[in-house]
Amino acid sequence: MERRQFLKTGAIAGTAAAASTVAAPAISMGHKEFNMVTSWPKNFPGLGTAAQRFADRVTNMSDGKMTVKVFAGGELVHPLQCHDAVEEGTADMYHSAEYYYQGKALAYSFFASVPFGLIPAEIDAWIHHGGGQELWDEIGAGFGVKHFACGNSGSQMGGWFKQPVTSVEDFKGLKMRMPGLGGRVIDAMGGSSVTLAGSEIMPALQAGTIDATEWVGPWNDLAFGFYKVVKFYHYPGFHETGTVLSFGMNKGVWDGLSASEQAIIQSAATAENNFDLAEFNANNASALDTLLSEHGVELVEFSDEVFMAMGEAARDVLATVGSTDPATQKVYDSFMAFRKDVIGWSKLSDQTYMNKRALVDFYS
Amino acid sequence: MERRQFLKTGAIAGTAAAASTVAAPAISMGHKEFNMVTSWPKNFPGLGTAAQRFADRVTNMSDGKMTVKVFAGGELVHPLQCHDAVEEGTADMYHSAEYYYQGKALAYSFFASVPFGLIPAEIDAWIHHGGGQELWDEIGAGFGVKHFACGNSGSQMGGWFKQPVTSVEDFKGLKMRMPGLGGRVIDAMGGSSVTLAGSEIMPALQAGTIDATEWVGPWNDLAFGFYKVVKFYHYPGFHETGTVLSFGMNKGVWDGLSASEQAIIQSAATAENNFDLAEFNANNASALDTLLSEHGVELVEFSDEVFMAMGEAARDVLATVGSTDPATQKVYDSFMAFRKDVIGWSKLSDQTYMNKRALVDFYS
Repeated sequence: MERRQFLKTGAIAGTAAAASTVAAPAISMGHKEFNMVTSWPKNFPGLGTAAQRFADRVTNMSDGKMTVKVFAGGELVHPLQCHDAVEEGTADMYHSAEYYYQGKALAYSFFASVPFGLIPAEIDAWIHHGGGQELWDEIGAGFGVKHFACGNSGSQMGGWFKQPVTSVEDFKGLKMRMPGLGGRVIDAMGGSSVTLAGSEIMPALQAGTIDATEWVGPWNDLAFGFYKVVKFYHYPGFHETGTVLSFGMNKGVWDGLSASEQAIIQSAATAENNFDLAEFNANNASALDTLLSEHGVELVEFSDEVFMAMGEAARDVLATVGSTDPATQKVYDSFMAFRKDVIGWSKLSDQTYMNKRALVDFYS
Repeated sequence: MERRQFLKTGAIAGTAAAASTVAAPAISMGHKEFNMVTSWPKNFPGLGTAAQRFADRVTNMSDGKMTVKVFAGGELVHPLQCHDAVEEGTADMYHSAEYYYQGKALAYSFFASVPFGLIPAEIDAWIHHGGGQELWDEIGAGFGVKHFACGNSGSQMGGWFKQPVTSVEDFKGLKMRMPGLGGRVIDAMGGSSVTLAGSEIMPALQAGTIDATEWVGPWNDLAFGFYKVVKFYHYPGFHETGTVLSFGMNKGVWDGLSASEQAIIQSAATAENNFDLAEFNANNASALDTLLSEHGVELVEFSDEVFMAMGEAARDVLATVGSTDPATQKVYDSFMAFRKDVIGWSKLSDQTYMNKRALVDFYS
């Protein structure tokens, strides 16, 4: 499905839902119930589970005075129409990823993940302590939505391909599922990118309307069963290097909360931001083993040549995006300046440590 | 100061404090006030600030029904005697790092950081989803202390040296401040390790009783001013590769809380676990610039040869620790098995991505 086509369908679904539901939140006897729409199947590993844990944290911390009802993607509105639903008051909250809403504000992409961007620890640093949250608040205010980081899928795999990618030429004519700015890089390399919700990928692979797809990492990819159709699993991903899962709340509803209710929601989101990334990292290793040993998946590293071509395309895509309008430019400038500094620090810490750690075998 | 000497002094201080304070927590009119002892100077960057933010989160989320009074290290008890204070009920809570308490249980070290261990994202995965929390609870139960991860200082620098380390021989006779199991590695390499609280390091460097020290990273190290005495700043650290800051609470006090009060404390700790690491990463980059450009600090990478020697010594130290007793062995086995799997996943994700990201210059 092409992005344009999806957006049209999604908009219709969103409108229908808005007409049929009541303004939120439901308040009775001092109890507040919030509806939360999500982009994920119910309790889908790392995504739906994060939304549900956020809800449970709020319920438990407020001693049941606030409850959050979690809706799977498609249940109340289309999985990629969460922002509309919260903006319009069809739902009180969403759990989603901001790049799905780049059609509303291009700068939203920087609060999910951009090509050749930051790993999770780095993007958290930007959002919490590098000016990111303040910029996110500015964008959200324009739509009446309050945002927090509420999970992270980690550095993602490069994707599933029918044939292994051995040169830059292999991207010519390739139809690949990749949302957001990563998709633009695929386009710039001669391919054709498509945005699909997670549940739509497997049917598209089976029908042959796409040749390749990325989704998340071994844990999630195993759950969808892509290995049944495609065997070549590339790493590392250039396109989603630490995707923030986001919480969005109708600003009117947010502003109507007491300071302690707001504090509960904010800490619940930040706690989940930590707990969820840990869930992805803990489960990806074992899922990878299963894919390789039980399902005949072949792991392929992108060559430096291919990765450099991706990087050059990504640099141009980001620069073009950054110069689109003053609001996007402001976010781009902040993100890119922080990226430069934090990469310098990562090189002295995690990156060089992990490289040198590999020099010593602790297991033979 | 030698560790043995410190422990003696600390124990006396701890006893004196215990005798002079009242059993906790203070409860009046449905309001609970908890005393929290810490190992840090008041509001020290990333350490004291994390303790204070934890306290503020608890106050705000409970609408002031629970408050936490934060004490700087030395204010109520010695900075490294927090565990004793909470165990004995002198204080309700602590914010510290578990390797300071390896004298109580050797296995505690694995819940802070061990040589050649895990980076922050990896250790969070072990604690939250790899069985770590359950093992930590078992150890804590033996002392009547409930633990949570509550911050992370990130992958630390290799330390400050009077002379640059160019070969393994340079460790022979070197007196270096390094607590925990990292210190044992220094000893195994022919050096002599010393445990000192942060505030004791600068005087020791100035007096010449130590030749080298590690503390945390550029942000914290700049604050203590080590550059005034020593100029060679090595990276990466082998000894603290993502040190967890820990929350400990008297188990009797914890068990007396309602489910919602417990939920607030747990989410406050987990939220701070995310927010604090971000603070370190955001500030280390700019502090490093200051050290290099304004204070004439020279950055030196440990050679592969030196790092491999450290790794071989670390492997032996960990194996020896792991076989000390059944309780430690259980934690060691869990940690080492998880380490193997998660390193495999990190190689496919953050590690290879960061290496390939560096191939493309986004800034010239």
